[in-house]
Amino acid sequence: MTARPEGAPPAELKREVRADPRSELAAALSVADLERLALRRMPPEAGDFVTGGSEDERTLADNAAAFARRRFVPRVLVDVERIDTRTTLLGREVALPIGVAPTAAHGLVHPDAEAATARAAGRAGAMFCLSTVSSLPLDVVATPDDGPRWFQLYVNEDRAFTRRLLERAEQAGYEAIVLTVDLPVLGYREREKRRGWSLDVPLGNFGRPEGSRSAVADDAQPEPEIDLDELLDSRHGGLTWDDLDSIREWTPLPLVVKGILHPDDARLAVEHGAKGVWVSNHGGRQLDRSVASLDALEGVVAAVGGRAEVYVDGGVRRGSDALVALALGARAVFAGRAFLYGLGAGGEAGVDRAFAILRDELERAMALLGTPSLDQVRREHLIGQ
Amino acid sequence: MTARPEGAPPAELKREVRADPRSELAAALSVADLERLALRRMPPEAGDFVTGGSEDERTLADNAAAFARRRFVPRVLVDVERIDTRTTLLGREVALPIGVAPTAAHGLVHPDAEAATARAAGRAGAMFCLSTVSSLPLDVVATPDDGPRWFQLYVNEDRAFTRRLLERAEQAGYEAIVLTVDLPVLGYREREKRRGWSLDVPLGNFGRPEGSRSAVADDAQPEPEIDLDELLDSRHGGLTWDDLDSIREWTPLPLVVKGILHPDDARLAVEHGAKGVWVSNHGGRQLDRSVASLDALEGVVAAVGGRAEVYVDGGVRRGSDALVALALGARAVFAGRAFLYGLGAGGEAGVDRAFAILRDELERAMALLGTPSLDQVRREHLIGQ
Amino acid sequence: MTARPEGAPPAELKREVRADPRSELAAALSVADLERLALRRMPPEAGDFVTGGSEDERTLADNAAAFARRRFVPRVLVDVERIDTRTTLLGREVALPIGVAPTAAHGLVHPDAEAATARAAGRAGAMFCLSTVSSLPLDVVATPDDGPRWFQLYVNEDRAFTRRLLERAEQAGYEAIVLTVDLPVLGYREREKRRGWSLDVPLGNFGRPEGSRSAVADDAQPEPEIDLDELLDSRHGGLTWDDLDSIREWTPLPLVVKGILHPDDARLAVEHGAKGVWVSNHGGRQLDRSVASLDALEGVVAAVGGRAEVYVDGGVRRGSDALVALALGARAVFAGRAFLYGLGAGGEAGVDRAFAILRDELERAMALLGTPSLDQVRREHLIGQ
Amino acid sequence: MTARPEGAPPAELKREVRADPRSELAAALSVADLERLALRRMPPEAGDFVTGGSEDERTLADNAAAFARRRFVPRVLVDVERIDTRTTLLGREVALPIGVAPTAAHGLVHPDAEAATARAAGRAGAMFCLSTVSSLPLDVVATPDDGPRWFQLYVNEDRAFTRRLLERAEQAGYEAIVLTVDLPVLGYREREKRRGWSLDVPLGNFGRPEGSRSAVADDAQPEPEIDLDELLDSRHGGLTWDDLDSIREWTPLPLVVKGILHPDDARLAVEHGAKGVWVSNHGGRQLDRSVASLDALEGVVAAVGGRAEVYVDGGVRRGSDALVALALGARAVFAGRAFLYGLGAGGEAGVDRAFAILRDELERAMALLGTPSLDQVRREHLIGQ
Repeated sequence: MTARPEGAPPAELKREVRADPRSELAAALSVADLERLALRRMPPEAGDFVTGGSEDERTLADNAAAFARRRFVPRVLVDVERIDTRTTLLGREVALPIGVAPTAAHGLVHPDAEAATARAAGRAGAMFCLSTVSSLPLDVVATPDDGPRWFQLYVNEDRAFTRRLLERAEQAGYEAIVLTVDLPVLGYREREKRRGWSLDVPLGNFGRPEGSRSAVADDAQPEPEIDLDELLDSRHGGLTWDDLDSIREWTPLPLVVKGILHPDDARLAVEHGAKGVWVSNHGGRQLDRSVASLDALEGVVAAVGGRAEVYVDGGVRRGSDALVALALGARAVFAGRAFLYGLGAGGEAGVDRAFAILRDELERAMALLGTPSLDQVRREHLIGQ
Repeated sequence: MTARPEGAPPAELKREVRADPRSELAAALSVADLERLALRRMPPEAGDFVTGGSEDERTLADNAAAFARRRFVPRVLVDVERIDTRTTLLGREVALPIGVAPTAAHGLVHPDAEAATARAAGRAGAMFCLSTVSSLPLDVVATPDDGPRWFQLYVNEDRAFTRRLLERAEQAGYEAIVLTVDLPVLGYREREKRRGWSLDVPLGNFGRPEGSRSAVADDAQPEPEIDLDELLDSRHGGLTWDDLDSIREWTPLPLVVKGILHPDDARLAVEHGAKGVWVSNHGGRQLDRSVASLDALEGVVAAVGGRAEVYVDGGVRRGSDALVALALGARAVFAGRAFLYGLGAGGEAGVDRAFAILRDELERAMALLGTPSLDQVRREHLIGQ
Repeated sequence: MTARPEGAPPAELKREVRADPRSELAAALSVADLERLALRRMPPEAGDFVTGGSEDERTLADNAAAFARRRFVPRVLVDVERIDTRTTLLGREVALPIGVAPTAAHGLVHPDAEAATARAAGRAGAMFCLSTVSSLPLDVVATPDDGPRWFQLYVNEDRAFTRRLLERAEQAGYEAIVLTVDLPVLGYREREKRRGWSLDVPLGNFGRPEGSRSAVADDAQPEPEIDLDELLDSRHGGLTWDDLDSIREWTPLPLVVKGILHPDDARLAVEHGAKGVWVSNHGGRQLDRSVASLDALEGVVAAVGGRAEVYVDGGVRRGSDALVALALGARAVFAGRAFLYGLGAGGEAGVDRAFAILRDELERAMALLGTPSLDQVRREHLIGQ
Repeated sequence: MTARPEGAPPAELKREVRADPRSELAAALSVADLERLALRRMPPEAGDFVTGGSEDERTLADNAAAFARRRFVPRVLVDVERIDTRTTLLGREVALPIGVAPTAAHGLVHPDAEAATARAAGRAGAMFCLSTVSSLPLDVVATPDDGPRWFQLYVNEDRAFTRRLLERAEQAGYEAIVLTVDLPVLGYREREKRRGWSLDVPLGNFGRPEGSRSAVADDAQPEPEIDLDELLDSRHGGLTWDDLDSIREWTPLPLVVKGILHPDDARLAVEHGAKGVWVSNHGGRQLDRSVASLDALEGVVAAVGGRAEVYVDGGVRRGSDALVALALGARAVFAGRAFLYGLGAGGEAGVDRAFAILRDELERAMALLGTPSLDQVRREHLIGQ
């Protein structure tokens, strides 16, 4: 098995060739470089929106620190000539164990919005998870051969609207529903508030935002105009485990529950039929001082006990972060900001760059860890807490 | 149960409406913002007095750090549409588990002094604890319908004076006596000393300070003029557990012992009839390098074993801090500086702002932690030391 | 028992009265203040000599950090009206559990040299330990009624010289011999070396240094001229436990072994007749990365098992540091730099100031810890490592 | 046993005499000083190459931090007049337990390249390990009486070339083969990449680089021109434990396996006939976030169980670092950068200086630790993790 055709140039060479060597994008060697570039190119409000967390941003910082604290114990003299970064997510093969986490309104970061992010993900063979509050409508983003897609769901007070969203997602080819459960109310993001920020941007799955290239096809039922606060505040606080059962009745798509940190909630998710448990603290944007998602991972993995797949997001900045998470029992990691930085730094080409960087880092780390395929990554490849 | 009438606008909206949007006060998003604002508005000496601790200020820093170190493990898919922040303190219902800790001479911070702080606390439905060394006389501060009040007691060498204080407190409607036991001598606050600071301000419960609007009513017996050093130095070092029994004889009000850090002292307090044990290191102003009050909390809770209520102060800056303390067994937290910063930043309106911020933070944290009422907060909602 | 006569003004007031309020010395509130003042007044070379440690100065920093890490758990409602800071060292009463550690050549810091330091120590009722390599001769420093004195011994290759030193010390009224055992070779103090520093100053116990006011009395046998490097390098590396037995034969004075960090060495010291075991890493000036002396204390105390007194130096900067060490089993602490900073800041009056600060801090800490006498300080008054 | 002839001046004095007192080299008191000096003298690219690590340079930093964290517990009153720093490596006596680790292309740092480094090592009696990718050919570097030499091997796809290298190494008098196993692919060294760096320098063991004074003797078979990337990328990823057996057949020299961090790999190395196990993470230049080599040492030592010698590199900057490693079970430490800093700071004289500093530091630390010979260093001389 190999994810790279034999004879193809190694990852590093490809990078040199593909990017314009004079461009700043090509000079970005890491996601951190893309971040710096994106923050220079984006309006400050969008920068705050993407980078910020809630209150004192302790969880935001801790998410990354939790990855930084871990240490690898590599194995040597393993044949690593062929590195295979492929895995499956709910049975669907993906080229990478690093997917795009759902984040709101990519249009804030770049006019091409989710279309750019999704196309780049498709090109990379990576899972793309679209947010309910995307800039573009879900039907526009997903095209049949763009690659694997999941749809992230916020449940609205208007249950009929929610059901229609699920139907549209299914028809558009999304392969799973990712239900976000850690947003009963919005976290308080002081960084955004200080600039008087509010998310008053067109949201493609609601109404028919003027001047947006993401309008729903004409024959579609125009959806009620709604803003993010309304969507989330009005009904979401009342969402309970019972709603999970309803949602499962409304769609045949497998359900992933995103926003789990407590082992008992992981158990409940599995008992309520979740096929995937997504460990997340919403990128440090909800309850500040929540445990770092990576630090919560092992407890969740143990509670799930193999009955569902476990994913994690929060703090992923390097390809090798995926190996840290896999060693602790995750099936894959998702990154939000990393790809938004790519998008902000250079649109679709920037997201390509983010994928290229992460894939190269991952391949290199797999070779250096002595784990040429992902199923070889074990707890023993890590020490320390 | 709900602390917020249905149909009322959510906390965040209320905030926008109530405050003048152009004012700096309205722009304060956190207690830290209020602190910055207050320090700009107060004379430097008062700033030093409020912010400072003793010697190297290690305990001062550690109090806040102890809260910052803790991590939540939230529960999800709990119905949190109705958040109820109410609890009872010694049987008295309060709207919040966050009260105003007794601190000296609010008149240093703002001319409206304790009258402002107390009115704002009453409006918020929160417990207000008046210091013996308040700027205003205890009789003036407490008005029948202002809300719940406790009186903090320093015992003076002149026992007759102490007894009269207790009688006045009882008559004025204070509902409990909070005996401070961690001030046998004054801590050494270098920050204050460097400016040649001394607390030579009118103290409302002593003498009849000229030019103070806090004069005792004319028919009252004029109290001996006394300054803080005299009050505290002259007899307090000799205060022992036996004195607790005397105080209990002098007043029918329930007794709270404030300044406990050692589990054995918590046990003694209960055995001597205390109805409340208040874990405190005096805001890091007494023995430097005392354990952070939050770090001492669990030991005290275990020693008390449910025989009394346990409170904690020191380092409280966020509404969510209350949840941290409650998860460790506290019934409520008290904050001193947080409200003084509000007072210094904008008088009574500033204290209102502090309460609004803390209440919003608390409600949001309860929703995000999956604990819509306070009795649901458990040790398992926290990890880490 | 009380160390302060009844009716006397409290320590703080005394301080105000004694010092000239306009002077910088009076404005020094802490040993850290004295340090800043001394470093401004001393030549840079002397500053480097006093403040520096060896190599990366990790042990130097760790000595202080070890004290800073500890946390007190105070007891309350103990009668602390009378604070008694007295203890005994090898049976001799001292007013304080904080003595002057032996350090070389006080003349570098102030022309009055050890005469000033010793007089101030005597006035404070504190133990003064004179170094073999003092600027002034041992006979000059000790005067009958100056207070308790110990003599620190470096053993020289010339054993006859060593024996004469011991005899002189005994005749001059020194009450114990403190044998330094952690200087088989000199540590490498890069800070000093960078300025080309060498300790080429008159040493009172050697030769008859010209232009020194510390000349030995005329009828004394002129000692061989010798410099510090010679003294220490020539023979000291060969000093072994057997030499301890010789030294005990040469003098009737009790022997304290200074420079112990390993419990097994503590046991050996006791078995070889030491009456005191002095835990020290030579102020971080010998083997860099040696364990902080405070961190080594408990192991040594356990190994000694009450068969000798245990002292500790290194990192003492606050009066409360003595309580930390006593809680861990020490009988007393010694400070070197703290008093040299006083000496550098203001000669004898500066050392007085250092003692006043430390004594006040100690008394206050004893009151606040709920331990009015030193024998009440227990391990339970501390938590943490 | 003594490594220093009796009567010879002590190390410190020698240093003063040998170096030109006016020169900057003589003013360098530590390896850190040499580093500063070298970085001033070398071109920035070479500085990046020498100092840098991979990605976030966490392992690079952690290597040094792991040494800095450890603490000594010295023993006293041991006779340390004669310090013996000698040990044996695979039976060969060396004067120091500190050897020169193999690093690429010393010519980048100084035109005298490995000839200078090796001569200085020989003069110090220390083991010198030459890299496959040295600037100078292996035959030129090793001269019969220069001292002990090992040859570090990268295995090339061209097995015939590899066998010729081994034969040349044996004929040239190298005494062991050090097989590097932690470079299946190159680590990503962002610091170098940012300057567009590539290692396009003459490599003495490949081709016949023009303008290089390191040309192979004329009668030698000209080797194929090859660059580092080719060498390492083309075949190295497929190197496995089986290759170890082949290599052992190709050469009678004992085999050391370098780049081991996992105890199970240490066991495998021994089972495949390795006589030495070299704990290394390639100086933090390969897999970032690999465990610090010192932190991996004890596990490897336990796994090897005395069946082979264990060495460690990574983070060695002080002579006393050798004692830390020896206390944890290493036979010797190797340093790469320390000697390159010497080379960059002053060519061969700079490497002499590095050795003088490290030897003096080691001797001093041995005296102060109470371990006059290396076999006396025990685990009990260290505390802490």
